Amino acid sequence: MVKNGALIYTAHPEKNIDPAMHTRYVEGEIDLDKVPLNGGVLLKTFYLSSDPYIRYRMREPHLASFVPTLSGIDNFGVGQVLRSEDPKFEPGNYVTGYLEFSEYSVYPGKIIHGFKEPLAKIEKLPGIPLSIYIGTLGMPGTTAYQALKYFGAEKLKTAKTMFVSGAAGPVGTFVIEYSKVLAPHLKVIASAGSAVKVKIMKDVGADIAFNYKEQDTAKVLEDHGPIDIYWDNVAGPTLDAALRNFNNNGLIIACGAISQANHDDASVVRNFDQIFQRSLTVRGFITGQGESAAVVPKFYEEVVPLVLQNKITSREHKSHGLVEAGKALAEVHVGANAGKAVIVVADE
Amino acid sequence: MVKNGALIYTAHPEKNIDPAMHTRYVEGEIDLDKVPLNGGVLLKTFYLSSDPYIRYRMREPHLASFVPTLSGIDNFGVGQVLRSEDPKFEPGNYVTGYLEFSEYSVYPGKIIHGFKEPLAKIEKLPGIPLSIYIGTLGMPGTTAYQALKYFGAEKLKTAKTMFVSGAAGPVGTFVIEYSKVLAPHLKVIASAGSAVKVKIMKDVGADIAFNYKEQDTAKVLEDHGPIDIYWDNVAGPTLDAALRNFNNNGLIIACGAISQANHDDASVVRNFDQIFQRSLTVRGFITGQGESAAVVPKFYEEVVPLVLQNKITSREHKSHGLVEAGKALAEVHVGANAGKAVIVVADE
Repeated sequence: MVKNGALIYTAHPEKNIDPAMHTRYVEGEIDLDKVPLNGGVLLKTFYLSSDPYIRYRMREPHLASFVPTLSGIDNFGVGQVLRSEDPKFEPGNYVTGYLEFSEYSVYPGKIIHGFKEPLAKIEKLPGIPLSIYIGTLGMPGTTAYQALKYFGAEKLKTAKTMFVSGAAGPVGTFVIEYSKVLAPHLKVIASAGSAVKVKIMKDVGADIAFNYKEQDTAKVLEDHGPIDIYWDNVAGPTLDAALRNFNNNGLIIACGAISQANHDDASVVRNFDQIFQRSLTVRGFITGQGESAAVVPKFYEEVVPLVLQNKITSREHKSHGLVEAGKALAEVHVGANAGKAVIVVADE
Repeated sequence: MVKNGALIYTAHPEKNIDPAMHTRYVEGEIDLDKVPLNGGVLLKTFYLSSDPYIRYRMREPHLASFVPTLSGIDNFGVGQVLRSEDPKFEPGNYVTGYLEFSEYSVYPGKIIHGFKEPLAKIEKLPGIPLSIYIGTLGMPGTTAYQALKYFGAEKLKTAKTMFVSGAAGPVGTFVIEYSKVLAPHLKVIASAGSAVKVKIMKDVGADIAFNYKEQDTAKVLEDHGPIDIYWDNVAGPTLDAALRNFNNNGLIIACGAISQANHDDASVVRNFDQIFQRSLTVRGFITGQGESAAVVPKFYEEVVPLVLQNKITSREHKSHGLVEAGKALAEVHVGANAGKAVIVVADE
């Protein structure tokens, strides 16, 4: 028997996540040799992802949303197969999938997994930690790729200027770098909320990078716009500023508005009429869903080479141990992290 | 010399249009035989249109918008050529175009016309007043046709339910009727603000028609939705209710949000996040502009037969004389009219 630490979800947040109030770290035990697998696999967890969208799952079950509620905590993770009764896997395989927040887990396990994605085998890339499979090569990267490739590619042929908000995170930096791959002459304006993030955005190629807490977004867009494409990660006043600085026939990719998950008034949109006044198109999407998901099967094939050529880069904000995982879930909502939030559960 | 009454625009409204404060009726004189035409035509005005969008032109010139500011009042109208120096027209021709709010006018005249559309000859249809060219066969009809045909046709092949707000006006009734032409089995839910308008919406084929002042829009959509397409004429809480009752991969056609022209808080959108949560597409457009305008050249060819077959119908809310025209401009903003607002300047 070995110790098996886990993070449990204990209450629904009304607004922001409070780790002490809404989660609890517990320690159980597991017999790695004898735990029943029921046709599945026994995993050792290396990395777990903290993503803003998790907040949408932390709700009273009667509230409809695009993701199922949490009946425990699970999310994208990376681990290694210790034992297997599934012919697709053998001990030693690296895998990614929807993993429980515990040091060891049986997959499929007792948590009703939010997404029914199968566990997938992954290859370790030279010199790159496996945690890239929950970041650049995981959900955030797929998110950016899916919408840019499907909704953006045509518009990027003629677009001169793009604006990206929340652009220092793993989706945002992928959007900046991949847009430049698709359209090398594109001017990219990028915003985020700290000096460290401004540096990240500049490092990945933003032509104009600014801290929206110190500079007025509308003024920056007046000075460096008008824009043809806006990648929206935030809605609210930032979207309103973008709407007032759009060229006609522009494109808005609506990727998320996490302020609304927290029932924050900052998400209110006042300039919706600019959408018809300027003949704009808005494309909302969820990773892996809808018509735009048609491009996802090409993701690894196209993006792995770009990663190996350093054209698409990664930054991580690591926390260590499941004891700290509740804090990691909360931090992505208050802008405390710069880079993909990775919970390191064990060394590779 | 004959009397030539005209409506003059005297001040910019802050919020709603007040006819006494923002317009004035004046009487001039014109010599119909001798007034210089400068290569143009002398017109007698029969009908002028009052449209909600005019409010967007009544603004301080420094405020950007999708239409030029008013330097006088002109709008879509129908008239007859009295004299012509333009080889395309001869006396007796019926024409439609952007006409001055006066009993007689020279075209092109002294007003800098908002839209540079040329004057067009029109044919009188049997038993149908020429005013149809400012309604069903004019801008409102073109508006509905352009977006339904270009953005809606594909989605209408699979859509089960559509919601139309502001649906008793000339755009809304065209949307209901033409949607049923394109997709006979479509269920249409329609809203407007009075019992008279509910009757109109039912008369033109809405399956569910309701008065949003008496019934909760969200409740109606819960009972009769979810919806696949929403034709939005109003934004604000109605759009928010629609956003909460959408099937995934739905389509919103953003036609206008006149509450925002009046700087009305009722236009604020709070559920923008549903656009990404439900993988929705929003298509904003302006009549005759953008890629969707590509279908407009087919408008008369396709719609005139539908009008003659009574599949697309018209209702008019007439006012008489330019003395009342200021009131007609204001009324379309307060829901006082049921049917296309037509200012009858003279008998055909």
